[in-house]
Amino acid sequence: MSLLVVGSVALDSVETPFGKRDSVLGGSATYFSAAASLLTKVSVVGVVGDDFPSGDLDFLQKRGVDLEGLEKVPGRTFRWKGKYGFDLNAAQTLDTQLNVFEHFSPRLGPKARKAERIFLGNIDPELQLRVLEQAENPRLVCADTMNFWISGKRASLLKLLPRVDVLMVNDGEVRQLAGEANVIKAAHAAQRLGAKIVVVKRGEYGALLVDQEQSFYSPAFPIADVIDPTGAGDSFAGGFLGLLDRLDSKDPAALRQATVMGSTIASFTVEQFSLDRLRGLDLAQVRRRFDAFRALVHFEELPEHVA
Amino acid sequence: MSLLVVGSVALDSVETPFGKRDSVLGGSATYFSAAASLLTKVSVVGVVGDDFPSGDLDFLQKRGVDLEGLEKVPGRTFRWKGKYGFDLNAAQTLDTQLNVFEHFSPRLGPKARKAERIFLGNIDPELQLRVLEQAENPRLVCADTMNFWISGKRASLLKLLPRVDVLMVNDGEVRQLAGEANVIKAAHAAQRLGAKIVVVKRGEYGALLVDQEQSFYSPAFPIADVIDPTGAGDSFAGGFLGLLDRLDSKDPAALRQATVMGSTIASFTVEQFSLDRLRGLDLAQVRRRFDAFRALVHFEELPEHVA
Repeated sequence: MSLLVVGSVALDSVETPFGKRDSVLGGSATYFSAAASLLTKVSVVGVVGDDFPSGDLDFLQKRGVDLEGLEKVPGRTFRWKGKYGFDLNAAQTLDTQLNVFEHFSPRLGPKARKAERIFLGNIDPELQLRVLEQAENPRLVCADTMNFWISGKRASLLKLLPRVDVLMVNDGEVRQLAGEANVIKAAHAAQRLGAKIVVVKRGEYGALLVDQEQSFYSPAFPIADVIDPTGAGDSFAGGFLGLLDRLDSKDPAALRQATVMGSTIASFTVEQFSLDRLRGLDLAQVRRRFDAFRALVHFEELPEHVA
Repeated sequence: MSLLVVGSVALDSVETPFGKRDSVLGGSATYFSAAASLLTKVSVVGVVGDDFPSGDLDFLQKRGVDLEGLEKVPGRTFRWKGKYGFDLNAAQTLDTQLNVFEHFSPRLGPKARKAERIFLGNIDPELQLRVLEQAENPRLVCADTMNFWISGKRASLLKLLPRVDVLMVNDGEVRQLAGEANVIKAAHAAQRLGAKIVVVKRGEYGALLVDQEQSFYSPAFPIADVIDPTGAGDSFAGGFLGLLDRLDSKDPAALRQATVMGSTIASFTVEQFSLDRLRGLDLAQVRRRFDAFRALVHFEELPEHVA
């Protein structure tokens, strides 16, 4: 079992209808590793500036996250500023400062190169390809991307897709990638572009897994109060790959459980700002919610005489 | 097994982004009985005017629906005119003409009085109460209602609720009834008003069943092309009660299957205008989609070592 994430570690400023936070911990690699470390051993490759509050990641280290691949370089940390209205499904980006992330080139150490499973967070597809060039023989590669790369770096993205086992995007992204409005048809189009499996994150609508043979649909776990949706997608990815790594499997049953695990951990993330909810979370709590999730959605087959 | 529906038989004029139909078959009792008759024996109590095209209900009779309780009186049939935008969850009512429905007072014949299960379609709660006064000893009573009665006939509605086993409403209605924004809390408030079980229909978001001991959440079956959502709620009710009547049960497992059956049949209804899709449907097709639904959402428990 070994899981590598390459992505951003950021300082976010976020406003939602329920409050506001300035320069708090964020970033795809951060949410991902906070989620996945509840289930398995995770290594992070990324970069922060010399303004990064060094204590902010202590809780990850306590959970066994390997931060050796997180470089600290002169300059300012990547910063994102965004705002959500009452439709918490869509963030409005107010400001993005790449800062030290602008010249980031991922370097995998000897251990990271041997990772069995890799999550390529939402970064330039050229950098995602550079990670795969260094990886020795991963059993599962999962990649996120976004509108900016789909339109601006399409050629690199199309080079990446055939090397990806799981493409993990939201509905708007898969529609844009495929040029197709229907999400299921768009997912099949993404498979024709090379991705073996497509996971479509749909916010409040849940998540859709489209495999070669079958589809799986997980509703979102119903949450009374969503406070801040930032990081839900990367927490989902962390739960998803964390469980696949823990189970050391990618069979259909494991992929389904992984999708539900992603939804489960994401449902915690959104209950508080930043990583506040993930920080104190443990696997027992996660397992209880996974079990509650199953109790909530499980139903039996019809008796045979109903036909 | 015997199921009674009291509600409207109407002529609808509907416009959606995908087309337009004038004076086509509609009404709660019509959608309900078209759905339920796929599963069990249904009797209809309602009223139409002398303008009603008599052949329109032949397909229901062929499915064994008992239309003896459908009075034909002088005057025009109830007419509804509505429009949907691309957000197909919400209809805009352009015109409602009660016509013969204005002086409708439901009269149950000797057979209808003995019905084991009753669906009270969305009519004046005073009329709904009048149905229950005539019913002899139903084992299950399910009622729909709407904003108009919740605000305008609240006292009668509050008299009805303690006599209702299943209150079946949409999210806006349960929120309004309870004065509570959170749907789950609102459902619990409706239970304190007397309804034993609350089923909240949530359109594209699926349906939520809140029983005494437990909740169940069914996503909506994903449909590639929704053409006209009219009648989805009443088809849901027909599938729900049709299955409970067929299974002769209201145990927790049956209630869950009934919720999924409601979603399944509603997913057919919205694929075409009016009752066009329900007209030619048979139980084998319904069962196949129910099974596909389960294959789509089923997942296994986590292995015990993940804890």
